[in-house]
Amino acid sequence: MQISSNPRSTRELAREGKFNTQTGGMNPGYAQANLVILPVDYAFDFLLFCERNPKPCPLIEVVESGLFEPVESARGADLRSDLPSYRIYRHGVLDGEVDNISKYWRDDLVSFLIGCSFTFEAALERSGINVRHNDEGTIVPMFFTNLQTKPAGKFFGPMIVTMRPIHRDKVVRAVQVTSRFPSVHGAPIHIGDPSRLGIVDVNNPDFGDPVEIKEDEIPVFWACGVTPQAVAMSSKPPFMITHSPGHMFVTDIKDESLSVI
Amino acid sequence: MQISSNPRSTRELAREGKFNTQTGGMNPGYAQANLVILPVDYAFDFLLFCERNPKPCPLIEVVESGLFEPVESARGADLRSDLPSYRIYRHGVLDGEVDNISKYWRDDLVSFLIGCSFTFEAALERSGINVRHNDEGTIVPMFFTNLQTKPAGKFFGPMIVTMRPIHRDKVVRAVQVTSRFPSVHGAPIHIGDPSRLGIVDVNNPDFGDPVEIKEDEIPVFWACGVTPQAVAMSSKPPFMITHSPGHMFVTDIKDESLSVI
Repeated sequence: MQISSNPRSTRELAREGKFNTQTGGMNPGYAQANLVILPVDYAFDFLLFCERNPKPCPLIEVVESGLFEPVESARGADLRSDLPSYRIYRHGVLDGEVDNISKYWRDDLVSFLIGCSFTFEAALERSGINVRHNDEGTIVPMFFTNLQTKPAGKFFGPMIVTMRPIHRDKVVRAVQVTSRFPSVHGAPIHIGDPSRLGIVDVNNPDFGDPVEIKEDEIPVFWACGVTPQAVAMSSKPPFMITHSPGHMFVTDIKDESLSVI
Repeated sequence: MQISSNPRSTRELAREGKFNTQTGGMNPGYAQANLVILPVDYAFDFLLFCERNPKPCPLIEVVESGLFEPVESARGADLRSDLPSYRIYRHGVLDGEVDNISKYWRDDLVSFLIGCSFTFEAALERSGINVRHNDEGTIVPMFFTNLQTKPAGKFFGPMIVTMRPIHRDKVVRAVQVTSRFPSVHGAPIHIGDPSRLGIVDVNNPDFGDPVEIKEDEIPVFWACGVTPQAVAMSSKPPFMITHSPGHMFVTDIKDESLSVI
């Protein structure tokens, strides 16, 4: 695999089929985004769903039907080819995984770019707060919860959360650091007790890999960007495209430019 | 006029036709909201416009077509009667001002509640930063600018800003305080030079009343909640309802609950 020195180069390598692995850790300092593509008939309901649920579904950019260049987050990019891997869903069922969606493209498709926690994890690490799954090279543990998202039209379902064990002396700082970034999930939604979220076994995640919670650490939970995909899937739209998990869209947006303060 | 001790009572007085004046200063501590009501055919474009322009158009709640109770911001309220005054527009032209819109109601109407700067002004005042137009009992000065909003479908147009003169020693604090409230316009968009925004005479606002800028003060500009109305008007939808200027919807949302940190 070629090394890419900047987001544009990463996207071009993906476009040329020379890069199809996960994007975690690539182009540090630049925001990455989740992708959901839906027919325009579903676009108002999904946009409203995101607006009502900004913690799991923080919108970075919406690209209207007929267009595929996200001019705000990556001028010159092509959402049909610039991610390393995509998933095709029909009626909520996975129908294929591809590295280019040009042949699936239709003029009625609306693209939603949704903030990714890579941005706030980088901020945590800059603040001296280690992120266990990054240190261990595993995928963040994710859980279904008993928290319901606010429904919008056809879209409804439970919120999915990520869990990061944080040293008890750094929990306050973790809240402060992530609060600055509401467009990438923002502040935690819960600190401390998995059972309050309906999580039976915090060592057995529904997605991703388990991580150890040490004696002096507290489990901290953030809203997860998988929520909008899961919710979109549960509504079973006739056609939907997403990125493949971990294979994100790398934008030209500097992480720090997403902070509100 | 009867005195109302809480937002619910204010809304009930409006509903009963017993209250039809401005809402500035009413029920301090509770957020007030701008109202834009549009036919569902315009709803996706307007929602997308708000999503793309969160500083002038911070959404508090969207009430879907067929419904008129904003369950998130004021359970039990009725958007057709609970504001003291409404404006009816047809093809972008003002067609009447009424204190109840029940007879204009249609099942295809979508209601947008948009954050109001009363919330951040209260926060400024709690921080010891005087807000001149409040002290003088006048309406905040508003200006057209040379800044274009990001267009979305049928909606486009220039951003409108408000101006508040801030003592030069308190400008930093004013940025900090208002940054905490992105859902009510958030941080300023410019500090210091009106001409950078295309404003020819800062003493001659396009809307509202002029205020004096003293020797030791700096003009500070925030995105204005009149922008979405002006933009909606310029797109000349066949039918639109808004609140009358200054006659806001008083919600049950505590001002401080809107802060992100």
